[in-house]
Amino acid sequence: MGHKVTFFPGNVTVEVQDGETVLDAAVAAGVQVNSVCGGRGTCGKCLVIIDGPAESEQGTLSPEEYRLGYRLACRTAVHGDLSAFIPEGSQVSEHQILAAYHGRGAPELTPLTEVRRLDLKAPSLEDNLADLERVTCALGTPDLLVPLPLLKDLPRVLREGGWQLSLMLSRQDGTRRLMAVEKGAKGIANYGMAIDIGTTTLAAELVDLNTGRTVAQASDYNRQLVCGEDVLSRIAYAEDKGVERLTELVVDTVNGLIAQLCAERDKQRRFHSGTCDDDIASIVVSANTSMVHMLLGLDPTHIRYSPYIPITNVPPVLTASEIGLRAQPDAPVLCVPGRSSYVGGDITSDILLSGMHLSEDLALLIDMGTNGEVVLGNRDWMIGCSTSAGPAFEGGEVSCGMRAMGGAIDKVSISEREVSITTIGNARPRGICGSGLIDLIAQMFVHRYLDKKGRIDTATSERVRSSGRGMEFIIHQEAGEKPIAVNDDDIAGVIRTKAAIYAGCSVLLRTVGREFADLDRVYIAGGFGNYINIDNAQTIGLLPDLPRERFELLGNASLGGAKLCLLSEKMRKEALEIYSMMTYLDLSSSNAFFDQYSSALFLPHTDLGQFPAVAERLAARPRE
Amino acid sequence: MGHKVTFFPGNVTVEVQDGETVLDAAVAAGVQVNSVCGGRGTCGKCLVIIDGPAESEQGTLSPEEYRLGYRLACRTAVHGDLSAFIPEGSQVSEHQILAAYHGRGAPELTPLTEVRRLDLKAPSLEDNLADLERVTCALGTPDLLVPLPLLKDLPRVLREGGWQLSLMLSRQDGTRRLMAVEKGAKGIANYGMAIDIGTTTLAAELVDLNTGRTVAQASDYNRQLVCGEDVLSRIAYAEDKGVERLTELVVDTVNGLIAQLCAERDKQRRFHSGTCDDDIASIVVSANTSMVHMLLGLDPTHIRYSPYIPITNVPPVLTASEIGLRAQPDAPVLCVPGRSSYVGGDITSDILLSGMHLSEDLALLIDMGTNGEVVLGNRDWMIGCSTSAGPAFEGGEVSCGMRAMGGAIDKVSISEREVSITTIGNARPRGICGSGLIDLIAQMFVHRYLDKKGRIDTATSERVRSSGRGMEFIIHQEAGEKPIAVNDDDIAGVIRTKAAIYAGCSVLLRTVGREFADLDRVYIAGGFGNYINIDNAQTIGLLPDLPRERFELLGNASLGGAKLCLLSEKMRKEALEIYSMMTYLDLSSSNAFFDQYSSALFLPHTDLGQFPAVAERLAARPRE
Repeated sequence: MGHKVTFFPGNVTVEVQDGETVLDAAVAAGVQVNSVCGGRGTCGKCLVIIDGPAESEQGTLSPEEYRLGYRLACRTAVHGDLSAFIPEGSQVSEHQILAAYHGRGAPELTPLTEVRRLDLKAPSLEDNLADLERVTCALGTPDLLVPLPLLKDLPRVLREGGWQLSLMLSRQDGTRRLMAVEKGAKGIANYGMAIDIGTTTLAAELVDLNTGRTVAQASDYNRQLVCGEDVLSRIAYAEDKGVERLTELVVDTVNGLIAQLCAERDKQRRFHSGTCDDDIASIVVSANTSMVHMLLGLDPTHIRYSPYIPITNVPPVLTASEIGLRAQPDAPVLCVPGRSSYVGGDITSDILLSGMHLSEDLALLIDMGTNGEVVLGNRDWMIGCSTSAGPAFEGGEVSCGMRAMGGAIDKVSISEREVSITTIGNARPRGICGSGLIDLIAQMFVHRYLDKKGRIDTATSERVRSSGRGMEFIIHQEAGEKPIAVNDDDIAGVIRTKAAIYAGCSVLLRTVGREFADLDRVYIAGGFGNYINIDNAQTIGLLPDLPRERFELLGNASLGGAKLCLLSEKMRKEALEIYSMMTYLDLSSSNAFFDQYSSALFLPHTDLGQFPAVAERLAARPRE
Repeated sequence: MGHKVTFFPGNVTVEVQDGETVLDAAVAAGVQVNSVCGGRGTCGKCLVIIDGPAESEQGTLSPEEYRLGYRLACRTAVHGDLSAFIPEGSQVSEHQILAAYHGRGAPELTPLTEVRRLDLKAPSLEDNLADLERVTCALGTPDLLVPLPLLKDLPRVLREGGWQLSLMLSRQDGTRRLMAVEKGAKGIANYGMAIDIGTTTLAAELVDLNTGRTVAQASDYNRQLVCGEDVLSRIAYAEDKGVERLTELVVDTVNGLIAQLCAERDKQRRFHSGTCDDDIASIVVSANTSMVHMLLGLDPTHIRYSPYIPITNVPPVLTASEIGLRAQPDAPVLCVPGRSSYVGGDITSDILLSGMHLSEDLALLIDMGTNGEVVLGNRDWMIGCSTSAGPAFEGGEVSCGMRAMGGAIDKVSISEREVSITTIGNARPRGICGSGLIDLIAQMFVHRYLDKKGRIDTATSERVRSSGRGMEFIIHQEAGEKPIAVNDDDIAGVIRTKAAIYAGCSVLLRTVGREFADLDRVYIAGGFGNYINIDNAQTIGLLPDLPRERFELLGNASLGGAKLCLLSEKMRKEALEIYSMMTYLDLSSSNAFFDQYSSALFLPHTDLGQFPAVAERLAARPRE
């Protein structure tokens, strides 16, 4: 009796016999799992998270790990179809998911938690303000929320410190809350975390809120992958089995990042105590609406069904302990507000980082994540939609696709029938990421390996050959290894993705009676945005045919926007204003979208008049 | 080896032999303790709280009762000097401490917790507000704090109730917090408690916050009495042994009142389930600064030493669960702000109920509690002080004194050498309360039983006789029982008390360059204030010699002010304004006070010119 085992990240499926171990399956699938002891259950390195029928012993796992669903791959027998998620630490080599971004800086340092120092006058019969009021008067915060234990300790702190003290305050929905008091003038360490929680990957920064400087970065795959690869399958999982498991998995992923960030910081500070892994004082989360629901343990069911109503787009500021995050228990956790079920807080963060909501210029913002959200507008109005573009640019649904991380082919150029590639980190090529796919398809089209419909020309090169899924084109092959190649199906997937995004842009413009030529700026956000070649993206019809200088690449703008909110009160207000001013356009009920989408399922487009510069480049190419 | 056992309330001391029980001591002292089984430890009625060396078994007590310090008097052996507090239920008969008050009503119903009903439109693709934002928009509360469990439940409540729902919101330091949501239009029960926590007694009201009506009243002695009779001895106890025991005792007293109030309400509603004893949704506390500290578990030590700085005069709004009160865990607990260590929130409540802070008229407010606080001012300014008057008017330090409760002699008149009395509740006389003492001393003075120095005339009547503490005057005697009598020491105590209060008033007026004749209103607050005879109070020199119509008796204004704050946002703001506008005058460093005090140690005063009407009445009396 064969069972299917699917490994994440990567979505690689293999069939094994009943009773074989998950480590056996990994070996069969060519998925690399760390195993120092060679499968004897002693090294504890081959940690996986399992969803499905399997039998396992606790082995070297702690009870907490076991409760969270961690298993040793070598000690877990497969008894049915299942999914297995391989956490970062169990992968043979760690590949940093890129999390760089560019855009506005914070205008001033008014972080979500701030440290204030006070040097007070000692009281007297004439100046007989009570201890607490002496402090709140000096701070200028009459409505300060003060937890009872801190109030109890206040007289001691004041008197032992000779009326000098440092205080940590959090800002929460218009109020301030006292988080810590320490005697004397030495201050209090104050670290915040900005985090982008994507459906597939998470990226986080640890920021010293006393200076505004980022001190560590970390990223990881979302451990929810074991419950389904895209948002809709996760919601279906929640509907079927409850949201609790999804919450547990994403909280566990975030807590892993917290540990990574704090370890990195402590290494820099040359601390080795290991006691500083939970002193984060505030957290800003930038995520799509479903991820926010799952993080907070909110049932996402209604997101999936018309009229697609989430429980909240503006979650209340909660505390780390309410959510289960390993930060200071009272640390405020702010989720950047989103507009709707399918245009979430990650998009608000993108906009915030771009600054398009402050300018007279008409701008278009495209977030090239799984959903391909698009926002059009300026400082007076804003309209957004989600195009359900699919995960092709994130490495999904493409046979050799992968995220923009070490070993991914990120640039491709073809000349004289030679294919040149570069990889992220100059590592050995492992697959191709979004920017590489755009280059590849554009260059194949320009060099006539592809026709206008995206079909591989059967008679062009020794790189082209027949495969199980139509023709395939070999991008790269190391001696004696499986080639990295794309096939007709892969290319069709990329074309559907680019068509959806372009159609979304077209519909938004038409809705407000404008054209592509009216756009002053086009912002590109998303994890692969740093590498994208604009010319090639125009050639395949993903981006509109506008002058290069109108485009701006933001990178992981969701993370960048989260950091802005972490640092600045003004930015948090702007995020709320973006929420208030944006209109959401639901494309699922839009005929115009399907018309536009169909017209865009060509390279670059059925209407070549929309791509005059591309047409010129195509016309200028030599007959080969 | 003899040990002293002191019983509270009442402060009656008796000496017993080592190993005798507390019940033996109570019998010896004439203190009535309920004991149905006659001391066999089976009825569980003779509950006492012990402070001091004693040996006891748990008997029929629950572990929780035993932990709180409850003991069975019949099963507790005395092994040293100790104090024993007899809770209300263990006293043979229950005597209601009077808690009536008169003054302003609440201008509008904006209670500390309010229930709102909503009838929302169902969402659609066009009207796609998220669940939470749909609710906060309808409520007009964008900054609503929402606990995660309620947020998780919100989609179910909305959809099952057909978009009709009721919500309970609390107001806390400028923000609103969601406390409960229920589907449908049936509303939510919403009860609040106003409570006056005095050093000696507590009085509370249960108020239906949906209507503003008081539905039950209750009162009890402060169980802290077992740790000392006055505020300073309680602070000394806290300094010596920590504040925790005092907190536990006052919280236990309050929880007892909550149980009484809810039982009374449920009786009215004919509920017998017994499950409704902790559904109070909000609490307003009116108390002196030390009691507030002890309730919240704040160290009161610094209140006792110059410059007398409390931890806070404006405590943050805490929750019932933080304090340990048996209300809804999230129920907000607001302490009415006080001005200083010795002019507390109870005085702010007095002022609030009087309305003197809103009028152009110059008013004087006297709170005749243990400390005898006095406030002078109008809507533009206010100055307050504490006179350390002592507890004579509350039944303390007077041999036959008692609180204004059932059986207390509250009115005395003498004519034709006949003494007429009335008692509260027309009960058999048990002692004399403050208003009775004022009447008695005034009438004795007018009828020449007393000289100007307050000494009992030795040759006036068969009611006068010699006693262990100078001469004594028999007020009342039932056949075969101990007479109710006052002696020279008792009267000296009352005169010291009235002198301190009058001196405090004089000093405040002098400080601002005004005279008694300038006063438009004189407000009298305090538990005995309903009964006070103004003429007699002027005769002894307690109250200034002004026309009767300028006086207003407020009764238990501290409780009345607490109820105002429970009911109205405007009242809560006014309380804060009173806090802000009042100046505190410390009399402990005032020579003027000691001069005025010395001059007032006569009947009515050394300067008879200050009491022209009294002088006239005295001159008009017939030579007897």
